[in-house]
Amino acid sequence: MDYMIGTDIGTTSTKSVLYDENGKVVEYSNLGYPMYHDVPEAAEEDPDEILNAILQTIQNVTKSVDSEHVLGISFSAAMHSLILLDGNHKPISRVMTWADNRAGVVLGQFKQEANFQNIYQETGTPIHPMNPLVKLYWLSHAYPAMMENTGYIAGIKEYVIYKLTGEFKMDYSIANATGLFNLHTFNWNPESLKLAGVKSNQLPDLVDTDYVIDNINSDLVNELGLNSNTKIIMGASDGALSNLGVGADQEGVAAVTIGTSGAVRVMTTEPYLDPEGKLFCYYVAPHKWIVGGPVNNGGQVLQWAREELLDHLPFEEINKLVDNTPAGAHGLIFNSYMSGERAPLWNSNAQSSLVGLTFSHTKADIARAVMEGIVINLNEVLNLTKKSLAVNEIHATGGFTQSEVWCQILADVLGQSVTVPDSFESSCLAAAVIGWKALGKIESLDIIRKMVGTTKEFKPNAKNHEVYQKLIRLFEDVEQQMEPLYGRIAELQEELNGEER
Amino acid sequence: MDYMIGTDIGTTSTKSVLYDENGKVVEYSNLGYPMYHDVPEAAEEDPDEILNAILQTIQNVTKSVDSEHVLGISFSAAMHSLILLDGNHKPISRVMTWADNRAGVVLGQFKQEANFQNIYQETGTPIHPMNPLVKLYWLSHAYPAMMENTGYIAGIKEYVIYKLTGEFKMDYSIANATGLFNLHTFNWNPESLKLAGVKSNQLPDLVDTDYVIDNINSDLVNELGLNSNTKIIMGASDGALSNLGVGADQEGVAAVTIGTSGAVRVMTTEPYLDPEGKLFCYYVAPHKWIVGGPVNNGGQVLQWAREELLDHLPFEEINKLVDNTPAGAHGLIFNSYMSGERAPLWNSNAQSSLVGLTFSHTKADIARAVMEGIVINLNEVLNLTKKSLAVNEIHATGGFTQSEVWCQILADVLGQSVTVPDSFESSCLAAAVIGWKALGKIESLDIIRKMVGTTKEFKPNAKNHEVYQKLIRLFEDVEQQMEPLYGRIAELQEELNGEER
Repeated sequence: MDYMIGTDIGTTSTKSVLYDENGKVVEYSNLGYPMYHDVPEAAEEDPDEILNAILQTIQNVTKSVDSEHVLGISFSAAMHSLILLDGNHKPISRVMTWADNRAGVVLGQFKQEANFQNIYQETGTPIHPMNPLVKLYWLSHAYPAMMENTGYIAGIKEYVIYKLTGEFKMDYSIANATGLFNLHTFNWNPESLKLAGVKSNQLPDLVDTDYVIDNINSDLVNELGLNSNTKIIMGASDGALSNLGVGADQEGVAAVTIGTSGAVRVMTTEPYLDPEGKLFCYYVAPHKWIVGGPVNNGGQVLQWAREELLDHLPFEEINKLVDNTPAGAHGLIFNSYMSGERAPLWNSNAQSSLVGLTFSHTKADIARAVMEGIVINLNEVLNLTKKSLAVNEIHATGGFTQSEVWCQILADVLGQSVTVPDSFESSCLAAAVIGWKALGKIESLDIIRKMVGTTKEFKPNAKNHEVYQKLIRLFEDVEQQMEPLYGRIAELQEELNGEER
Repeated sequence: MDYMIGTDIGTTSTKSVLYDENGKVVEYSNLGYPMYHDVPEAAEEDPDEILNAILQTIQNVTKSVDSEHVLGISFSAAMHSLILLDGNHKPISRVMTWADNRAGVVLGQFKQEANFQNIYQETGTPIHPMNPLVKLYWLSHAYPAMMENTGYIAGIKEYVIYKLTGEFKMDYSIANATGLFNLHTFNWNPESLKLAGVKSNQLPDLVDTDYVIDNINSDLVNELGLNSNTKIIMGASDGALSNLGVGADQEGVAAVTIGTSGAVRVMTTEPYLDPEGKLFCYYVAPHKWIVGGPVNNGGQVLQWAREELLDHLPFEEINKLVDNTPAGAHGLIFNSYMSGERAPLWNSNAQSSLVGLTFSHTKADIARAVMEGIVINLNEVLNLTKKSLAVNEIHATGGFTQSEVWCQILADVLGQSVTVPDSFESSCLAAAVIGWKALGKIESLDIIRKMVGTTKEFKPNAKNHEVYQKLIRLFEDVEQQMEPLYGRIAELQEELNGEER
């Protein structure tokens, strides 16, 4: 039996999974690392702390198997990370993660200077401080000397693969999320590079997601429990891999994810660019693209509500409360923008509004309105994709799938059946399958569907769907009416919090 | 020592207090009666259940004193009540209280048919389903046969005084709150009578608030512990008397009350009519008028928040939480319209909005935002009065005065010192003082100031006032943005609640 390791370099931890040829999990290891917030807007990590964790997880999963049978390691990684390297590829900065919002201060200036709608149409990356393009624009203005000392620029996966193999490569899907990559030419985008203040020779070579590297640093081969013939496969971004890994790998299949945050991702065979620039369009593999949007306000909103509004009730109690309250929460409307919002608003000033409150509303209505509000926001993102893409199958993933009533709310809001795939570390699985394919062990990525089971299916209730159609209209109207106030409220909050500090 | 009884016929109970000549409480009795809600909008009481409670409280307070020294009984009563009587002054309906909203269904029609701005300018009564005028308009359309059988029309106080004395009189201040009384002519308003479908000879004779009636029904004199010479003094409405009873009896003194609901009342020497018709203007006594507005959303909003959002914390814990959170609740905005609102919106469809929510907000911020929201709404009412009336002194009354932090919020929002008078059953005291004056025992109502002590004074904190100036602007903007949605949200809520019933 041969093995493939799928390694997912996440924001809080790295997971490595050793799979056999049937996609069965043989070994699993998960190691975390700290995030540094030197100022509230910063969200940085140490590249070598991450590297060490990765190496350790690989070592952990190879322990029990014969190293001769470990054919490869294929990678997944969080998008939008940025590290500045010197001329010898040594880090001169920490990893600025996707959560680092410091570039927000220059977003207005960026939008004035850049033809940003055009950049989106070339890169498929919504304009946001999380993007390496905007981060580099900020660094060029705020720390010009540091940029002058920069030899190379990478994300965390490129740095790690460089340390493992000496090759400085970036796969198309990670590149696609930088704002620097032209998805029509499959090359760096000149307009972006100019704004970022970087040259293409400072960036890694661009390769496909199934690109194979032969030469693992010989010092590491034994230490990691590999053999001299073990390959490194580039793999892709976790966003690109997530749909693959839950079996949402065919055209017209959408994955709706609610974890701490959330996302909607629809699989399509050709790139699709939103006329308003509100959706990402990211490469996965030849004729496989995902179109969708990331949402800040996922399960962490219910977590907050549980702590501040719902007496710290256990989640099963909250599910019971919600289940005993009818769809629409007696007409309570919760716009779930607790920490600004990426898709569909792309407004970092947005706040939550709980609207329509009357004396007859109870804690149960509030809990239900929170779940409904999170889902309605994801539905708005999905509707943006539906303007041009058919969405005929919905896969639900993330922690929220443990709540049956929440999955039912999703089906009822969408008016579509929702399937919960039985996936474990879906990005690792998808990376491993890309690895098998890259090494010619399988013919098509389609095999992944057989590796993913289905635990449950939720069919929409027509009456509830009708209620939600009405509620959604009001939800959108509340959002539209509040939108002009977000900036001023944010300003007052900033001022009041500043006085306290 | 001579005694005067002040009897306040309230919505949930009647209180009688026996005072000596110095305003000292000698005896006190309080007896309740049920409210009937045959449909959710109805809020009715039984006139004879109330009459019996009144007689019993009077009997209770006279027990311990020599009946020869009980000089009189002076009345206070809740405004806006309506009873239909037959030709022998026998009730053919229950008492429709101020809380009865059934006439709401014809409000639109009423406003189309009536020159309602003009009616307000003649009567000083804001147009609302609570008003006897609108109630009679509704009855004339919904129950024409019942109206045909109606001989006389009264409020609860007129019915009770008729039963005690055989005289069918209504004082100017109660009349002033019916929408049927012209405050310029001190007579019934012909345009109102036409809309109400009643004739002036169906209504009680109009008398001043210090009008004295000699002949108490002889059967009752002994039973009630009175003497054959004990007088009945008309007294006034509880709204009119409340300012007197807390010592807010001079021009430019405002009483801000937060009990279950709330109110703002400013004392003035001449009638003042709000150009927009949003303030009442009610007669108290010669050259004493009160101008202000009633607010639905008082302490009951905090009560709701305590039950549904704040883990049923004891109020002292809530006060502590609020006290430990800075003014402005970290930029959280609570529009407190949990059951529609009378002043300043006069919009029965309004709902509450909790706006500006972020992950950094806590239970404490929410509690503070609720207290602040209730106060800011009362401040809006006060500001309407300030457009034309000087307000140089603020007296705070009602249950909320037990919360020091809430009183401080009031002072900080207003930017004015707030005095908490030491009053007990202020409407009873004010009625009694009108009684003493009516019987020539005192020269002026001003004596009441000496009978009312002060417990506390709250001085505004300039920095907090500055914060509130900014918060108030946002509060008003949220209200303005939400206003177009109230009707549609109310419609959806009605529909969803209807499906459940």
